[in-house]
Amino acid sequence: MLLYVDSRRSKLFKAVRGVRVSTDKGSLNADDVLGLPWGSKVKLSTGVEAYVLKPTLNDILMKGFRRVTQVVYPKDISFVINLLSIAPGSKVLESGVGTGFMTAALAYHVGASGKVFGYEVREDFARTALRNLRLAGLDDRVDIKVRDIREGVDESGLDAAFLDLPDPWEALQEVRKALRPSSPAVIFTPSANQVMKSLRALRSGPFLDLRVYEVILREYQADPEALRPRTLGVMHTGYVVFFRVV
Amino acid sequence: MLLYVDSRRSKLFKAVRGVRVSTDKGSLNADDVLGLPWGSKVKLSTGVEAYVLKPTLNDILMKGFRRVTQVVYPKDISFVINLLSIAPGSKVLESGVGTGFMTAALAYHVGASGKVFGYEVREDFARTALRNLRLAGLDDRVDIKVRDIREGVDESGLDAAFLDLPDPWEALQEVRKALRPSSPAVIFTPSANQVMKSLRALRSGPFLDLRVYEVILREYQADPEALRPRTLGVMHTGYVVFFRVV
Amino acid sequence: MLLYVDSRRSKLFKAVRGVRVSTDKGSLNADDVLGLPWGSKVKLSTGVEAYVLKPTLNDILMKGFRRVTQVVYPKDISFVINLLSIAPGSKVLESGVGTGFMTAALAYHVGASGKVFGYEVREDFARTALRNLRLAGLDDRVDIKVRDIREGVDESGLDAAFLDLPDPWEALQEVRKALRPSSPAVIFTPSANQVMKSLRALRSGPFLDLRVYEVILREYQADPEALRPRTLGVMHTGYVVFFRVV
Amino acid sequence: MLLYVDSRRSKLFKAVRGVRVSTDKGSLNADDVLGLPWGSKVKLSTGVEAYVLKPTLNDILMKGFRRVTQVVYPKDISFVINLLSIAPGSKVLESGVGTGFMTAALAYHVGASGKVFGYEVREDFARTALRNLRLAGLDDRVDIKVRDIREGVDESGLDAAFLDLPDPWEALQEVRKALRPSSPAVIFTPSANQVMKSLRALRSGPFLDLRVYEVILREYQADPEALRPRTLGVMHTGYVVFFRVV
Repeated sequence: MLLYVDSRRSKLFKAVRGVRVSTDKGSLNADDVLGLPWGSKVKLSTGVEAYVLKPTLNDILMKGFRRVTQVVYPKDISFVINLLSIAPGSKVLESGVGTGFMTAALAYHVGASGKVFGYEVREDFARTALRNLRLAGLDDRVDIKVRDIREGVDESGLDAAFLDLPDPWEALQEVRKALRPSSPAVIFTPSANQVMKSLRALRSGPFLDLRVYEVILREYQADPEALRPRTLGVMHTGYVVFFRVV
Repeated sequence: MLLYVDSRRSKLFKAVRGVRVSTDKGSLNADDVLGLPWGSKVKLSTGVEAYVLKPTLNDILMKGFRRVTQVVYPKDISFVINLLSIAPGSKVLESGVGTGFMTAALAYHVGASGKVFGYEVREDFARTALRNLRLAGLDDRVDIKVRDIREGVDESGLDAAFLDLPDPWEALQEVRKALRPSSPAVIFTPSANQVMKSLRALRSGPFLDLRVYEVILREYQADPEALRPRTLGVMHTGYVVFFRVV
Repeated sequence: MLLYVDSRRSKLFKAVRGVRVSTDKGSLNADDVLGLPWGSKVKLSTGVEAYVLKPTLNDILMKGFRRVTQVVYPKDISFVINLLSIAPGSKVLESGVGTGFMTAALAYHVGASGKVFGYEVREDFARTALRNLRLAGLDDRVDIKVRDIREGVDESGLDAAFLDLPDPWEALQEVRKALRPSSPAVIFTPSANQVMKSLRALRSGPFLDLRVYEVILREYQADPEALRPRTLGVMHTGYVVFFRVV
Repeated sequence: MLLYVDSRRSKLFKAVRGVRVSTDKGSLNADDVLGLPWGSKVKLSTGVEAYVLKPTLNDILMKGFRRVTQVVYPKDISFVINLLSIAPGSKVLESGVGTGFMTAALAYHVGASGKVFGYEVREDFARTALRNLRLAGLDDRVDIKVRDIREGVDESGLDAAFLDLPDPWEALQEVRKALRPSSPAVIFTPSANQVMKSLRALRSGPFLDLRVYEVILREYQADPEALRPRTLGVMHTGYVVFFRVV
């Protein structure tokens, strides 16, 4: 559940007996909200009003997931989901899994009939990702292997692939074997040098429709009498390299 | 099917007997590609090589849809899908439908078990949107009504709403009635004035979690020896206003 | 003088006998660098090498000026200097003066033969600005009056005007009287609401060539093996509204 | 003189006897405006009203200069002038000169007591630049040599340098010899690859304070009832690499 106090304060919590949720505006017993319909107004210990909301995917990612790596932000997650044409039922390859933000988003969109096959070299990352996916109720749609993707992919005939690795260019032939010909894939990478290396590798292999993007998000102060972008913000996360395998 | 010639030339076509596909690099008989697997290499009449690819959602939207209004671009479509937490099975309200870009994307992500309820005042727009949705094979997931949303929404208990109207602030109470409490909704609007009017209306009603965003996309020249953003591009499409109903 | 240690550490100091300059990499006696040519390499108390550099205008603004208000950043300062067509000899009107960043930049570019006439309602701001201008050696080119510009401008026949006020639209007629017909002027303002109000006032008065801009600066990590924009940064400072008086 | 008709139509012309200025809203005899003060309202042949304005530096660059190369835009020109700390009296090195946009801006700001030393390998470019500078009345402050800067610079003790060359990294040692130690210099270059090569060369030589920037300009529709950035625009011109010589 999401306890929404105001635009700066909201908290994700598990609605189980005995849990107490604290915010700097007051606290709440989970017992008191069990059974309430979504959107109910409640009172914190201090008398401050709050709301009990159904969390969105982003609420769960941003407020519930334990982070162990640099994560992929919603602005990039959503753009990649679109480029990869993820639909209910899609079978998707991912490497590395890291904290599991992208894994969760992929699992969310492929639905109960789809599957995400994740490769992650570090066991501790894989374990945290799985814990996060369980929190989101998405773990049954995900199959995580602790393995370097360059050592081989077990699957074939997949619909799309997402690579967030230090050396994505070394994984391209495995991606190609795993995907059905004509399928889309995306590399997400922070520096222009890695984009160049990826493009060079993609150009020499049998890959098509190479494209490079960057998504810049500006959040505004939501004040109708002083509308303006927030002063400080995230200027850069990474570059998105799109391609198709044949 | 998508006939991919090179990074500047690709064409969406229906693979039916007798159809001839032309590009400025040569043409092709659809008969010759019927039955070929995705990703097959073919030769155009001129000897130029091309590929037969499975179209992504964006290929269909950008190359197949007939346009009758200003459309919502993939950068915004994907960000909104994410904000609205659209999943397989979601029931979504949309107004207006216009050319049907956003309708198609919503229908794509809600899957066979979900539904999009679209309100559109102009019958000619509704007709074109339906034709476009049929082309994408998504028409059975969409229910379009030729009606001003302010005259009333038939549905209730929906999961999310998307508004792309000249006066979105006049539709807020209907949105509220149609959505389950705590559900997310988005207004997409081109000018700062409309954002302000929307925020004023949202602040006076029972709406929560107001946020305003702008997504800027930069496409790069995909050349590893001369990596740089393209010189000209789309600097602005619209502002994204997020809120939740209670 | 600017003591440059590395890309994160540099310090502006006055090279006078007895002064000691401290950095977190070591300290230096000003006495030891008196008389050294610009660009000389020196050793800090810790043995760390540093350089004695001639400060640029920005070094003085960013590292030397005491700040009492929100300041105008170099990205906006330079764009405005350009729009206003400031040249050696220009006579410029400014209101308000605030911390004096823009005042100093204007004074720098008008040279010894030009003049900046600054209006500032708050005496404490005016005093700090004057102190800052003295530090930059530019005070003799500036004439600061503690006065609300709406109460009247003493000068006439000026070449350009810069307004950084909460209500710039109320100062337009005074700006018009002070400038020679056909001269350029700029309003700098943080919110879209203020831009709208300014445009409405400009449209009703005898003003021409209205334009609105926003300058976004991205600073990159200057690493040739990992070139990428810095993760966090300034997303917004203000909008630049240009016009000409007739 | 600048003939200003409306926000989309303005024309730079020489006010000499017998000249006729045409716009798509009507024409004007230069004879009729000779002697009129700046800002005067005039009538075109069609009865449409227009204004006679004193051109700004940008009016002259953008509307008067004949272009033979890719030019440097005002957003970058102004930012570079600021980084280079150009003041009245500055002596500046430039290579290549190209169309002369940057040359003119430098000459404008160094004033009558300063000087710009321009190196340009192509004689035809040098000739056009000189013609352009004459039009702007700035040619006496500029000394253009038809020479590859790598063959040697005649000047020394200069205050700043601007490089807009395909291989700027090959000119660094000549820049170093020409500038006084501690002086600022800027490389302007379109691709990330050239930025990397420049940074590598700068890191190995005796150069300090390396910084990389990108200036993004958004122009808004100046309509107070529909304020929004223009839909299409320039997404990229070039990267700005700053350094200091010692």
